[in-house]
Amino acid sequence: MENINKSIIGDKMSSLTGVRAIMDDIKRVRARGDVIHADLSAGNPVVLPELVKLWQKLGKEVLESDAVGDILVRYGQSRGYEPLINAIVKKFNALYGLSLTADNVLITPGTQSAYFYLAAALSGKSKSGQDLEITLPYCPDYTGYEGVVLDRAVLKAVKPSIELVGERNFRYKADLDKVAKANKGGYILFSRPSNPTGGVVSEDEVKALSEIALKLDKYLVIDNAYGAPFPNLTEVEVKPLFGEHIINCFSLSKTGLPGERVGIIIGNKDIIRLLESFQANCILHPSRFGEAVAAKAIESGELEKICSEVVAPYYAQKRKVLVNTVNALFPKNVAWRFHVPEGALFGWLWIEGLKSTDWELYYELTTRGLLVVPGSSFFVGLQEEWKHSKECFRISLTASEAELVKGIEIFAAKLKEL
Amino acid sequence: MENINKSIIGDKMSSLTGVRAIMDDIKRVRARGDVIHADLSAGNPVVLPELVKLWQKLGKEVLESDAVGDILVRYGQSRGYEPLINAIVKKFNALYGLSLTADNVLITPGTQSAYFYLAAALSGKSKSGQDLEITLPYCPDYTGYEGVVLDRAVLKAVKPSIELVGERNFRYKADLDKVAKANKGGYILFSRPSNPTGGVVSEDEVKALSEIALKLDKYLVIDNAYGAPFPNLTEVEVKPLFGEHIINCFSLSKTGLPGERVGIIIGNKDIIRLLESFQANCILHPSRFGEAVAAKAIESGELEKICSEVVAPYYAQKRKVLVNTVNALFPKNVAWRFHVPEGALFGWLWIEGLKSTDWELYYELTTRGLLVVPGSSFFVGLQEEWKHSKECFRISLTASEAELVKGIEIFAAKLKEL
Repeated sequence: MENINKSIIGDKMSSLTGVRAIMDDIKRVRARGDVIHADLSAGNPVVLPELVKLWQKLGKEVLESDAVGDILVRYGQSRGYEPLINAIVKKFNALYGLSLTADNVLITPGTQSAYFYLAAALSGKSKSGQDLEITLPYCPDYTGYEGVVLDRAVLKAVKPSIELVGERNFRYKADLDKVAKANKGGYILFSRPSNPTGGVVSEDEVKALSEIALKLDKYLVIDNAYGAPFPNLTEVEVKPLFGEHIINCFSLSKTGLPGERVGIIIGNKDIIRLLESFQANCILHPSRFGEAVAAKAIESGELEKICSEVVAPYYAQKRKVLVNTVNALFPKNVAWRFHVPEGALFGWLWIEGLKSTDWELYYELTTRGLLVVPGSSFFVGLQEEWKHSKECFRISLTASEAELVKGIEIFAAKLKEL
Repeated sequence: MENINKSIIGDKMSSLTGVRAIMDDIKRVRARGDVIHADLSAGNPVVLPELVKLWQKLGKEVLESDAVGDILVRYGQSRGYEPLINAIVKKFNALYGLSLTADNVLITPGTQSAYFYLAAALSGKSKSGQDLEITLPYCPDYTGYEGVVLDRAVLKAVKPSIELVGERNFRYKADLDKVAKANKGGYILFSRPSNPTGGVVSEDEVKALSEIALKLDKYLVIDNAYGAPFPNLTEVEVKPLFGEHIINCFSLSKTGLPGERVGIIIGNKDIIRLLESFQANCILHPSRFGEAVAAKAIESGELEKICSEVVAPYYAQKRKVLVNTVNALFPKNVAWRFHVPEGALFGWLWIEGLKSTDWELYYELTTRGLLVVPGSSFFVGLQEEWKHSKECFRISLTASEAELVKGIEIFAAKLKEL
């Protein structure tokens, strides 16, 4: 690509960041031909047969409905498929006592595009020459936030503190004082539950961040990809928080519909109108089949039902296996800690005082047939050196139980040698 | 939206341009409650029953196939759904004697997003401070090109000349000398067949533009939304042109699948890799159901078949009715001319010496119950005053024959009064 006369933006967007870059590396590892005993790197959810059946059933209903011509053979409105928007308004108002209307909702082709619109429209140079920034009060956080920005400089993480919990756990706490000292304008952004840590930022902490955002004339953007009301992949109760300056993003990817790219933004009318225009100019509108299927699943209550009865228990069981195996096999004389496991699809491991870097250990583990994700890529927007950022690993819950156990065995054996 | 502290890019993208803005205006006209006798403004294709049947059939095949879990319940590769890419490679190689591989193809969620990626990555400031521009050798052209640019200044039309054809026809000719004097870098862009004119740029003219592009170190981007091999909505034979520096965009929207947003970019490997990264960072990947349906339709040959046997004849018949009615009813003493009608979904009318502007006449026509699209919005990127740009109207072929005739009657009656 070096020979292409790109724009500065094109140059930035031509490199893969974070997990997408790691996946590229894993492809190279696999191409070496080593036997892989356990792949605990994947972010791709498991194809649960109950999910396949549900989408097949609802998909056929869509294809057989009178609306099929309108859904497939005509352009739609830029805001998204009306019955889906209506289903969301009804569901959220009922669940959380809100008074949303269709003007508060935008459907996007997955939440990745939502973060892209937000970053392009609300960060970077403003007309008055202000630098609008995206403040990440937590790092590690979702690496995709780095992929979407047109200019890396707008992304600034405020290093959180580490709270030790019991003998072998820990969690990150936002440095509220420092977050409150960030530039005016732009927005604060984090995932809740968190990718990669599997933790859930407490309601008190969200409220504190929300007040800081208000004072700094910022928006608060919350990424609920693993949260309530769907997919609700948590073991603690998570209540989303709403407000005039809060922009909530929800996704159907972890409810088992990632292939169809259905994202939801809920925010005030002005923000929704801005993002709708952005979407109209960029892509006209999201694909409609997936939206129509999602509308049926939300309206009928089948989406919440399958999440709570099938998807959440499936990953909860995996989480239990992971935590138990780590506790049983990891050597006592190594200072490892596991992030308090509360939800999402991952476990997050910290090996304090690791002599090598996370990438070096990752490569050594690949030679023994284990794939995990080195953690440093998740410390997005970090402005300073932090040894901790090279001591962590993300372990995915999408492998089978046997593979999970096998992988932790390999990891434990390696740790014993250190 | 005024109270939002937007970035400069967000400010630009917050306004609707071209046809999307006109559609907003038409909503206001309709809200007035006047009786509309003929809506010749719509760009939304007709829901032909044969198309609905085809998508229903293929959609069910997708839902019942073993691949359904992989298609819906897992993330896909950023480049697009592999079987669709393979079907396209095979089809284009067979039809045009090419030697494309999967590395030459990117699937996007509709071609609008293709133009967005191209504009963001290949126009604007380059690292070396160069201004990379998008040169439009034809105006009028597709208004969406204005919507996708992050900065309007990059878009520069070179005013074409008008060639009179017979007594009542005309066509636009690119000013090749002026196009050859444009900045280095960036790209040349046009639609073929043209939205809005319904004309087809000749092969000689494409070749001349291609050579100019080469000399200026530019790409040549050709928008084949109405062209061959599908939907092939033309009455003249159109052969797409390929080359290392040519980027061809194809769409399934006018083959009757606009709701699913399936766009195709064919270009050299480096360009495809750049745009693939852009897409990975922005949206991860396009929705997969529509891609899977498209793969089946292209592989089986059903797509070309339905286009040539159903869709193209349907619009050809409408075109005939439009041309005949205009010729029969429009007053002889008014200097109107019709763009040589060769394809696409529109007729393009020029009323030379019109006393009022196109917008004024558009409003007057709405009060008589006729909706057409005032032409000035299509003169995208025009750098100079041109009276002609306020004398044209786009007439859509998507209304029924009766509505088409009724609409032309209203238009003709108005012209007789001028």
